[in-house]
Amino acid sequence: MTEDTQARSLDLSESQRIEAFSDGVFAIVITLLAVEIHRPSAQVGGLGSALAHGWPSYLAYCLGFLYVGVIWLNHHSLFRLIRRVDLKFMWINLGILGTTALMPFPTGVLASSFQSGDLFDQRSAVLLYALIAGLMSAAWLPVFPYLHRHPELADPNLATGMFAVQICRPVTGVVLYTLAALLGWFLHPLAAITIFVAMVVYHAWTSEGVRQGSSQVRPKRK
Amino acid sequence: MTEDTQARSLDLSESQRIEAFSDGVFAIVITLLAVEIHRPSAQVGGLGSALAHGWPSYLAYCLGFLYVGVIWLNHHSLFRLIRRVDLKFMWINLGILGTTALMPFPTGVLASSFQSGDLFDQRSAVLLYALIAGLMSAAWLPVFPYLHRHPELADPNLATGMFAVQICRPVTGVVLYTLAALLGWFLHPLAAITIFVAMVVYHAWTSEGVRQGSSQVRPKRK
Amino acid sequence: MTEDTQARSLDLSESQRIEAFSDGVFAIVITLLAVEIHRPSAQVGGLGSALAHGWPSYLAYCLGFLYVGVIWLNHHSLFRLIRRVDLKFMWINLGILGTTALMPFPTGVLASSFQSGDLFDQRSAVLLYALIAGLMSAAWLPVFPYLHRHPELADPNLATGMFAVQICRPVTGVVLYTLAALLGWFLHPLAAITIFVAMVVYHAWTSEGVRQGSSQVRPKRK
Amino acid sequence: MTEDTQARSLDLSESQRIEAFSDGVFAIVITLLAVEIHRPSAQVGGLGSALAHGWPSYLAYCLGFLYVGVIWLNHHSLFRLIRRVDLKFMWINLGILGTTALMPFPTGVLASSFQSGDLFDQRSAVLLYALIAGLMSAAWLPVFPYLHRHPELADPNLATGMFAVQICRPVTGVVLYTLAALLGWFLHPLAAITIFVAMVVYHAWTSEGVRQGSSQVRPKRK
Repeated sequence: MTEDTQARSLDLSESQRIEAFSDGVFAIVITLLAVEIHRPSAQVGGLGSALAHGWPSYLAYCLGFLYVGVIWLNHHSLFRLIRRVDLKFMWINLGILGTTALMPFPTGVLASSFQSGDLFDQRSAVLLYALIAGLMSAAWLPVFPYLHRHPELADPNLATGMFAVQICRPVTGVVLYTLAALLGWFLHPLAAITIFVAMVVYHAWTSEGVRQGSSQVRPKRK
Repeated sequence: MTEDTQARSLDLSESQRIEAFSDGVFAIVITLLAVEIHRPSAQVGGLGSALAHGWPSYLAYCLGFLYVGVIWLNHHSLFRLIRRVDLKFMWINLGILGTTALMPFPTGVLASSFQSGDLFDQRSAVLLYALIAGLMSAAWLPVFPYLHRHPELADPNLATGMFAVQICRPVTGVVLYTLAALLGWFLHPLAAITIFVAMVVYHAWTSEGVRQGSSQVRPKRK
Repeated sequence: MTEDTQARSLDLSESQRIEAFSDGVFAIVITLLAVEIHRPSAQVGGLGSALAHGWPSYLAYCLGFLYVGVIWLNHHSLFRLIRRVDLKFMWINLGILGTTALMPFPTGVLASSFQSGDLFDQRSAVLLYALIAGLMSAAWLPVFPYLHRHPELADPNLATGMFAVQICRPVTGVVLYTLAALLGWFLHPLAAITIFVAMVVYHAWTSEGVRQGSSQVRPKRK
Repeated sequence: MTEDTQARSLDLSESQRIEAFSDGVFAIVITLLAVEIHRPSAQVGGLGSALAHGWPSYLAYCLGFLYVGVIWLNHHSLFRLIRRVDLKFMWINLGILGTTALMPFPTGVLASSFQSGDLFDQRSAVLLYALIAGLMSAAWLPVFPYLHRHPELADPNLATGMFAVQICRPVTGVVLYTLAALLGWFLHPLAAITIFVAMVVYHAWTSEGVRQGSSQVRPKRK
């Protein structure tokens, strides 16, 4: 091993550790979503209807699982392009993890507002969800400018300006979750939920997009 | 390292990351099953009988733990045969994880229906369990056809048609869980539970089967 | 790489995957012990005394954390001596994980029986703890005979009969937890708890013992 | 591979396993903090105000997440300087993990004392937080003297006395958490909380410090 190879393998193992830690957080968040489906405390003979009554929980689980799964895919794609991490990038990553770890809370609140709340409860719940999902989008904002200014962290074979383009994704997130909050509060909660579902689809779609954008890049050696 | 070796080691490390993430989810699901055994809130002096009353929880834990453990063994065997993952396969894998993560919920509901419910509650609970376990089997359906059509993802030394044969396992799962739902609802919940136990045994047995089927294959290099 | 080196590195990576999965389970179990310390639901102004009243929870957490930590150390020492895993050994390992994952439950029950139960509750709680801790010891019983009969799984540099000697540890566990159950039920719960604490010390002591016993062995190459 | 290289790579993989286990515990602790934000059980129409009423939970989550995140960064920086682990160091590490795993409990209690308690409750809650955070600082006390006395565990390229200096950090923690307990009890809970926030900032700052202190050191080869 040359001195250069050593340094590079250090950097890679560094980024692998932060990946492993992040994967741990994502794995727990995605599993805790299922814990938000509370076992119904029904009277004897009433379990069947109590279970049927829980449909918003099941839908919320699907939405939440897809969303966190998509964020994991995005995170995974991002780290494929990264060769090193520094302390500031670790803080940016903690911001992503900290907002993602919150997701089971608004997802559960959203479910229970449709299960046992009125229209005002549902408005509050979509506002909370939009706020936290918007925060999570905001946590992605510094990722791409930082990588653009610090090309030494990224795979050297990446096209110039690769990261500068990606900023559009968290910006879209912040804008649309703000819109969802406004529509959900002043128009109808279902308008907000339509945007929530659309955002999951959008992030799923653009996680593919990042992959295609980097397909001409030579794979990073691990 | 030749260019070819690099590409291969990239693919392997890719499949190792998805394995590590999946292992994290399995580890949490298998541990959360124990959390479903609620600490009884008994009156002073009544803890002993409250604990004895909790036997369905203990049986449900055994069933659930064996089942998720067996699914982990199956998942483990599958990934031994895989060299690369692509985005679509990641989605298929997320489907497996998402349905597996649900398992503690119907397992807990099943236990509480036998602990404090009547026959109608038990019917509802076996229906829920059959539905979610059936969904989990269904989540395995696309795995084998996809790998059959994309041999570039699999170990090149695998016998042709290896994956095509394995489709029988998730199909058996979907069919028998449908049967369990029907029998459990119209005949008796215990009929469904017999099938649930049989399915765990079946999947345990066929996880061994996959291993034997791949024993003539040269081991994948990590 | 020679053909032989490849096979060995496959076996090692196989045992590393099962180690990583087991570590995941241990990490979650050890963390869930803290979740058993319920936040007290005190009246306004009564939080201080409610927290002071919770001392059995804090002691139980210490006992539980030390115990699971010690089991992790034992598991870690065991896998240092192992080069390969086969399907049967995976099942034995699942047995260890499945009984360890149960530990937060009897630990929490033990704490609440001393917090809000009478002597009869405490008897029931130590019986439950002795039963599950005894089961966990029993889960270690097949480990050492199996490795003794299958030396191909172990590091070839290990002294012959190395594993045959280790069987004394789970046997001691099963015998002493049975004794604790009898003493706790017929004599006094505190007699059982003395044995529980002694067992943690014993397992901590013998995890060191295994390390020393293997110190003349050449380290396994990873 | 020479004999020496083998031994070194064994030691590194040993320290990597303990890192992976610790990362698992940190990932779960950081995620369980979000679980302490209980979904409010509001009456129909009262969800909005119940959510607004939960602001201490949200602040507590921010504080707790930053704190555990910072401890993870510290732990991460520490293990970058370590090449080997022995059994005693594993016990020291278990002490760090065991006190860190407790953090969601006092963080949640602190939040609920400001949400639904009086001044006396808040005093009790800051006392509990100071006690457990102080214990966590105390768990770091043996780390640096032990590494100073056992330079064979550390990267051989580290400057002499490197670890001896670091002892000031856990000492500062123990002293200031004791001060916080006294001020919080005798003066006002908010005085204690100011110190709690300051300690997170201090640990964040000095995790950077360790990094800078080791920047002249040649990177450890993984």
